[in-house]
This record gives sequence, C-alpha cells and structure tokens, in this order.
Amino acid sequence: MSLQLSAIASSISPSATLGLNATVTQLRSQGVDVISLGAGEPDFDTPYHIRQAAKEAIDAGKTRYTDVSGIPELRKAIVDHIFEHKKLRYEPDEIIVSSGAKQAIVLALQAILDPQDEVILPSPYWISYTEMIKIAGGKPVFISTTPDTDFLPTPEQLAAAVTEHTKAIIINSPNNPSGAVYSEETLKRLAKILKDKESEYGHDIFLISDEPYREIVFDGKKAPYPAAYYDNTLTCYSFSKSLSLPGERIGYIAVSPTATDADILAVICGQISRGIGHNCPASTPQLGVAKVIDETSDLSVYEINRNIIYDTLVDLGYTVTKPGGTFYIMPKCMEEDSVAFCNKAKEYDLILVPTDGFGAPGFFRMAYCIDTEKVKRAMDVMRKFTEECYK
Amino acid sequence: MSLQLSAIASSISPSATLGLNATVTQLRSQGVDVISLGAGEPDFDTPYHIRQAAKEAIDAGKTRYTDVSGIPELRKAIVDHIFEHKKLRYEPDEIIVSSGAKQAIVLALQAILDPQDEVILPSPYWISYTEMIKIAGGKPVFISTTPDTDFLPTPEQLAAAVTEHTKAIIINSPNNPSGAVYSEETLKRLAKILKDKESEYGHDIFLISDEPYREIVFDGKKAPYPAAYYDNTLTCYSFSKSLSLPGERIGYIAVSPTATDADILAVICGQISRGIGHNCPASTPQLGVAKVIDETSDLSVYEINRNIIYDTLVDLGYTVTKPGGTFYIMPKCMEEDSVAFCNKAKEYDLILVPTDGFGAPGFFRMAYCIDTEKVKRAMDVMRKFTEECYK
Repeated sequence: MSLQLSAIASSISPSATLGLNATVTQLRSQGVDVISLGAGEPDFDTPYHIRQAAKEAIDAGKTRYTDVSGIPELRKAIVDHIFEHKKLRYEPDEIIVSSGAKQAIVLALQAILDPQDEVILPSPYWISYTEMIKIAGGKPVFISTTPDTDFLPTPEQLAAAVTEHTKAIIINSPNNPSGAVYSEETLKRLAKILKDKESEYGHDIFLISDEPYREIVFDGKKAPYPAAYYDNTLTCYSFSKSLSLPGERIGYIAVSPTATDADILAVICGQISRGIGHNCPASTPQLGVAKVIDETSDLSVYEINRNIIYDTLVDLGYTVTKPGGTFYIMPKCMEEDSVAFCNKAKEYDLILVPTDGFGAPGFFRMAYCIDTEKVKRAMDVMRKFTEECYK
Repeated sequence: MSLQLSAIASSISPSATLGLNATVTQLRSQGVDVISLGAGEPDFDTPYHIRQAAKEAIDAGKTRYTDVSGIPELRKAIVDHIFEHKKLRYEPDEIIVSSGAKQAIVLALQAILDPQDEVILPSPYWISYTEMIKIAGGKPVFISTTPDTDFLPTPEQLAAAVTEHTKAIIINSPNNPSGAVYSEETLKRLAKILKDKESEYGHDIFLISDEPYREIVFDGKKAPYPAAYYDNTLTCYSFSKSLSLPGERIGYIAVSPTATDADILAVICGQISRGIGHNCPASTPQLGVAKVIDETSDLSVYEINRNIIYDTLVDLGYTVTKPGGTFYIMPKCMEEDSVAFCNKAKEYDLILVPTDGFGAPGFFRMAYCIDTEKVKRAMDVMRKFTEECYK
C-alpha cells in the first residue's frame, strides 16, 4: 500500500529558506566557515531584561492555559501600544494573541476564505503566503512588481487584479524580501480601489497587513500604518523581530474597529485557533512580552548593515533598489538563472537566497540580521565572487 | 455590508468547557466561592526543577526559531523515552514536536483527509475533535458507547462504522471525559478490524491515538500503548498533564515506524505545521522538557481524588462507571436534561459540565485535577445538592 496524502498536503512545497538553514548547519558541521545571508532571523540574543521578564513569568507560575485569545494583560498592552504609536483605538476584544504573525495570517485567511476565493499577492511576497492560502482553500492571484516602482504595485495593476472572487489582499510593508515600504500615497490609492470594488461587488475585501518589520524602517522615517487608511484591515504582527525572540512564537492579529462585524470576526479568529490546534500561544512569553511591549532590541544595526551592503552592491555594478526597511535587500542577479547564481556564491561559502520562490525570478535575497563585522566579511566575499565570476 | 465568514468558520461551535471557565472567572470576580469541577487543567504549579530547566533555556539564549519538527535534543529524548517505556523504537525523524497533542492531531488529520473522508469517533469523545475534523475537510462518524461496555466500542460497532470512506479513527485512552482505558484485548480486536478493512478497501486507515493522560492510570495498572498493536498508528501526546505545564504548549506526534511511508508522513506533518502557521513550538519550553522528559509531577493525587468522588457518587445513588485513569469521571445525571441538571448544581456554586458536547447526552463530567481538600468540599456540596433536588 502506498501513502495517500490529502490533496492539500500533496500541494505543499518545502520552504526554500528552511532548506537553506539545513545546508548551512550541514556545512558548518563539516568545519566550513560559511557566511549565511540566508536566514531571516535576528542573529542576536533576546535582550537581558526581556529574558528576565519571561523568567519572572515562569517563577510566577504562569504556565497554565491562557485564554485562546491571549492573556488580558497582553491584549490591553497591545491596545495601548497601538493607540500610542498609531493613534488607532482598538478594544482588547479586537486583539487575538497568536503564535507569531504567521499564525495570525492563517487565522484571518481561514476565517474568510471559501474554495475558489481569491487572495491577491503583490510579488515579491513572503514564500509562506501561497501555502497558507492553499491550506485555507483559497487561490493566490499574483501581481508582479518591478524595480521601476520600487517593488510596489501600481493602481492599474491593483484595479485589474481584483475580481468578484477577491476576498483579500496580503501586503507586507516593510517587505520581505525587497525591503520596500508602502508609502502613504500608495496605501491611500490601494484603499480607494478596494473600497470601490467592495461597493461594486457587494462584499467585503479584506486588507491583510503583515507587519513583523514595522519598527525596522530607515532614514529616520516611519512606516505608515495600513489600518489607518482602510476600514477592513486585519493587522498581523509578530514580536519576533522587534524583541529578537522568534522562537517564542508571540504575535497578534488586530481586527480594525472599523472592520465589518469586527467583534464577530475576532471571536471567529479565536475559534479557528482552537480548530487548528493552537489552543493558546505559549503562556510564559505572553507575560514576558506584556511587560516589555514598548521596547525593542537594538534595531540600529540593520540600517548600518543596509548601507554597507547597498554601497558595495552599487560599486560592484548590481542593479539594486535601496530598501526602506527590514533587514533584507533584493538585488538583481548577474545572470538570468538565480539558482545558478546563488550556487556559484555557495562555492565561495556565501549563502544567498534565490527569490524565485518569492515570486521574483532573476533576483536574490540577502538577510543582514547579523553582526556588522560578518556583513563586512560577507561583502569581501561578495566582491571576490562577483569579480571572479562576472567580470 | 454584513460579514461573510468562510463555511468552515461558520460551522465551528464555541467550546463548552472554555465557556464554563469564563463563567467561573465571572462568578469569582463577584466574590462567589465557586467550586469548579469544570476545567480539565491541572490546578498545580509546574514542579520547581521543570521550571528551572525552562529558565536555564532562556539564560542559554535558546529563544530562536527551532526546526519546524522541534529541537534535535527533544526529538531524541522522546525516542529514548518511548523505547524505554513502550519498547517501540522510533527514529527521531518520525517525531514531530507540536504545540500540544491538539496540534499533533490537526497535523495528522490535515495530512490525510480529503473532502468526504470519514473519521470514526467513539463517543464520549473530546469536544474539539469534531471541529478539527471539519476544518481538515473531513466528516466525523460517531459510535455511541454505553456504561455496559465501560464506554468502550464493541467489535460489532467498529466493524459496522468503517466504510470505504474511512480514513482514520481517533481513540483517546485514557479517555476524556469517561476515564475509560482501552484494554489490550480491545486494542487487538480494533487492530484486527482495521487491518481487515484496509485490505478490503485497499487504502490506509490510520489509528490516531490521543494520549495526553497515558501516565494517569489507577490501581497499579498501565495503559496499553496502541501503536504496539497496529502498524498505521499516529500517536499524539502532550506534556501538559504529565508535567503540569499546559500553557507552554508542548507535545508531539510520533508516526509509527511501521506506518505506510512513515518518513514521508512525518515530513508532511512538519509542512502542514508551517502551512497552518505554527512554524515551530515555543523554543524555551522545548529545551526545558528535553531535560525532564522522564519525570512527571505528582500524579498520585488523581487516584486519591477519584476514590473519594466515586465512593460519594455511589453512596448518593448515581449510576457511575469507575474511571481507570485520567482526572475525569462521567456519572449519569439525576434527570434526563443534563444542562438543567448542571444548572441546578450551579445554584449551589458547583460547576459541573454536561457532556452533551462530548457525544454523551444525559451524563456530566467532573474534573478532579484540584487539591483533595477542594474535592472533599465539592463532595459536601454535591451531597447537599443531590439530596435537596432529587430525594
């Protein structure tokens, strides 16, 4: 007898970046001094006082089930934090604490998608979106962006992509892998188009705003908050990057107070969380995060790293858009086949990620959430690799 | 515009037991000295050295993403633990660490179920199974058991329930809410029936064995390990009860080495975990659990509590089956309408759970994972309530 997987299980592709992590581990175990610009994970310890807060939660015996929506202290802290920084007032009942932004997006998708419903994904997009949409029973619809518009979708592209089957669009600003930040003007135009299409088709179209990088914006700017521009916004957030504790799996979904039946939608997100087996996010990090919600780990290193990498790439003749935020940059490869390009870099013990899986063939992603010294070493190798292979 | 939820979201019912927790919290906030036999959560702190292990993991900076399948230390510890106690040798690759047994069951269901596939549920069953099966796209098929067979399904019932659409059966031994433990004989008969039906229909039928209570067995007995009797067994486990850390959300799925394409199935469970947004279980409790895997918190209190409750119920004239394990007991109500019965108990500030939602109308569940002193107080109230209302 051979195994019959479910159709959904059969349709899932392995993660390109997770595969690379395994490669890095394997090479290092062989003693290779590999420099990885592969993993989108801060290579920094969780700051001391954030770790202390989690330990205090353990001491306080906070290891029991929490509400499926998270502990009241954390939901209230989230509401206050958003009001202070974004001037939007949520009710605690509109916040569902989740195991990271990824789970938040799944809750949103599973709450609203039926078979054949479409979800618009401007590319480049985070690789996991497509699998998450498929598992929720929906169909991803892609918009290809280019460096000409700084990897942001144009109003014409957006208007053309929305059909009567469109239930949502997922935007990710600042963007993984391009580093693009949606401008206020882009968000206003997007909101206008979605609102018009909602009226035309007579049903809700949700803006799922994936924002794990929203504190990591460069040049003294701030990322505009999408929920401030569009009523039906479901904001998905993770503390993984801002507090450098990705493994603890804490984030949330904030259902805009202006969203259609916001209270019902939030309750349903909690029910979906039960139905896909989360029950609640891990309890002790919830209390830990509640105590340090207004803090971040030192994020200034990312701008320093971006500047070093961008300047080097320009100097080496790469076509590259300057990232407005995140800890990613997505230059064009020196040859059409991005997998071949990244494989050549691997010969130099330098791990780069081809972005075909992110809907951007011909480009590659560098993650610079590592020490600046490592970034400088990586740039030395990048120079050698580029000059020897492509000059 | 009114909200259009997905068909799946619309089909989910709120959890009966979670609703009760809210009631208890509300009553207590009003100063009512309520005794709750409602929540199936150990009312005991995580033992000191288990908490220390988690804090050491935080100190060691283990707050980063782990493999989607869990950290190697924990997977190896699980394999060694099962071999020592159950004499079945798994490979670490056949273990996927999950956020509790609940998520483990979801991974199994989503890996194998297509629309119209059937999953057999002997009642009484844990209330969450039905939602989890529906979200995975399948259809629950119920078998009603009775006190005459100690709430275990008969061979005739099992044989009659399996159809060509059957993809799995979920058993839960020891059982929530009845406390029934599947005997070796029952497991052997179940295995024979499933194996015969596999041959008849030419496809796999998986035994999903949900075992969060397997260490809590009374009268000096041990719970037979279902995977030892049937090749296609997917064992779902949680450390919530054995280590008293339910909020930390750590469990696993063990794909039997003898299951069809066990290696593929385990990988797919990991992929599903990504697709439903888990990414990985929380990192620090993973390391904490790895260090204390052979321990349990003090579980002897549950047998003491069972004896007190069982004797009192018999004395009061309840029809009740003596539980072989867990920290639940499921007596027959003194009137047909179990909701009315439990509502009357609530007038005495005693929280009982009607088991209609568990597929056992006319019965109620008492959870005795609380201090023995509280159990004794609860029995005094139970006596007063029963004598005043039903004598």
